[in-house]
Amino acid sequence: MKKLINAVDQVENQMISGMVKAYPHYLTKLNCGNVVVRTEKKSGKVALISGGGSGHEPAHGGYVGTGMLDAAVAGAVFTSPTPDQIYEGIKEIATDKGVLMVIKNYTGDVMNFEMAREMAEMEGIKVEQVIVNDDVAVDNSLYTVGRRGVAGTVFVHKIAGALAETGADLEEVKEVAEDVIANVRSMGMAIRPCTVPAAGVPGFELKDDEMEVGIGIHGEPGTHRETLKTADEITDMLLDKILADLDYSGAETAVMINGAGATPLMELFIINNRVADVLAEKGIKVYKTFVGEYMTSLEMEGFSISILRLNDRLKELLDAPADTPAFKA
Amino acid sequence: MKKLINAVDQVENQMISGMVKAYPHYLTKLNCGNVVVRTEKKSGKVALISGGGSGHEPAHGGYVGTGMLDAAVAGAVFTSPTPDQIYEGIKEIATDKGVLMVIKNYTGDVMNFEMAREMAEMEGIKVEQVIVNDDVAVDNSLYTVGRRGVAGTVFVHKIAGALAETGADLEEVKEVAEDVIANVRSMGMAIRPCTVPAAGVPGFELKDDEMEVGIGIHGEPGTHRETLKTADEITDMLLDKILADLDYSGAETAVMINGAGATPLMELFIINNRVADVLAEKGIKVYKTFVGEYMTSLEMEGFSISILRLNDRLKELLDAPADTPAFKA
Repeated sequence: MKKLINAVDQVENQMISGMVKAYPHYLTKLNCGNVVVRTEKKSGKVALISGGGSGHEPAHGGYVGTGMLDAAVAGAVFTSPTPDQIYEGIKEIATDKGVLMVIKNYTGDVMNFEMAREMAEMEGIKVEQVIVNDDVAVDNSLYTVGRRGVAGTVFVHKIAGALAETGADLEEVKEVAEDVIANVRSMGMAIRPCTVPAAGVPGFELKDDEMEVGIGIHGEPGTHRETLKTADEITDMLLDKILADLDYSGAETAVMINGAGATPLMELFIINNRVADVLAEKGIKVYKTFVGEYMTSLEMEGFSISILRLNDRLKELLDAPADTPAFKA
Repeated sequence: MKKLINAVDQVENQMISGMVKAYPHYLTKLNCGNVVVRTEKKSGKVALISGGGSGHEPAHGGYVGTGMLDAAVAGAVFTSPTPDQIYEGIKEIATDKGVLMVIKNYTGDVMNFEMAREMAEMEGIKVEQVIVNDDVAVDNSLYTVGRRGVAGTVFVHKIAGALAETGADLEEVKEVAEDVIANVRSMGMAIRPCTVPAAGVPGFELKDDEMEVGIGIHGEPGTHRETLKTADEITDMLLDKILADLDYSGAETAVMINGAGATPLMELFIINNRVADVLAEKGIKVYKTFVGEYMTSLEMEGFSISILRLNDRLKELLDAPADTPAFKA
């Protein structure tokens, strides 16, 4: 295992410390594990909290700030945060308008967020939740009942966060988050695995001419392995599956080409070149494109495509101001 | 060679096409090779042009937009753009206030930009240039007489671009660019090499316990190889060299932790954790920190640290609005 780290048991703490030291105007760390909250607490709005395992940076700490999240909770690498951590985050950000939890659909995450919710509700805090399940690759997985939540989650942060910032009620913010979830689909692949520091060995192994298709974001194997194809062929394969899952015809869309962590931006742009052409051929209009690292898996090399079907309200909220370390609009 | 590409001879074209299709409101491609210019041409200001080989994405196309560059020219991977390409870019963006070329110090880049400048001056276009040489690792290299230009170049784009946007004269914009260059120092290292697509083999090879120190941004070997150390030890080594080269005492600074292309953001934050601590110990104040991929080398795994010594004017210009695909302020 070759990594730029100090000690396996310090990667999460030192990562969060380094993030908070980079962005003190945005982020403050609580004294209860790796929980970051907005440095300037905002009242009179629904507060948003998200999180999950570490190793997905900039998710989710990078999305804490104006117009997105109010808190992000980070567990150990690829491991759910504890109920206590999540509860402390909720308590810190709660306003009288309530708290919305944005949970990616992994059994551990859902369980621990729901336990934290119960703890918060016993304190009289109003909490709602949404569960993101945008990955079309699998209907169930080793870690999930139902589809997994992947990079499409960032659209939930952006759009629900923008509505919350206007002072909308908890039910409205939850509803728009559900609207994003209903309209976003994603799928990914990898050509090189990643190594969880505490494990010391890669989550799977690939030959020089192989790729893993339908990959999740926790270094686990995908749905199947096949011979490496060209960027265009791979892109077509992922797009076929996404476009078959939701009717995008005539719609305007937001597209995210998300790097898994070690994929050169050059290759992500080559992939977007094909995505843009295919969508244009099919009469699907791209309103906005995001190319970069939004939800990573350590040093995995690969990418995912997320496509969000927009309506006027989602468009407006997607464009609304956001000021966070990793996402500005 | 395992890459997400279609054909070795198409990587640059398809990358630029994919970039322009992602950001049509920002970028328009000229019909003369891989030159991108601002979609909304701005008059009444000094126009900035930069560029170099491809493979450094988001540099430089990602920095074209309000408050930074007006044009970016991309050669083949790690290869200087041609004088013709640069000339076409200059012609397209030239205003009566003139054009400033921001050149990284590589012999080929300097020669070709200067030839383009001569061509433009024969057409009556006023052109000035600055040469960025922020890399403290080597005083000369295989590709350079004098020090190399690396990630510190992005500070030149940001600050000179911000002054240009105010309508300042060419001489003033050049002067502030020179001020940034005089005050920024960088150094990098890598734990995994990258492979130029047309070459098909990595630029160097490292054993599992080795790292390459004093690396450039073109996949070339660094100044020396040594046993891999901890992130903190490596960071201290690079900082020592940077801080010995310029008197930062008592100064406010801007810090950039730049990923080489395949380095997980988690590791860049672990590095920033140490950088912040060391600078604090030495009484060097960090005004702003940038952590991410700003000037990459394909899928090289490693990082560089850049530290810019600020004064009031540089601070103000660093904070001024910028709206480009890869840098927003």
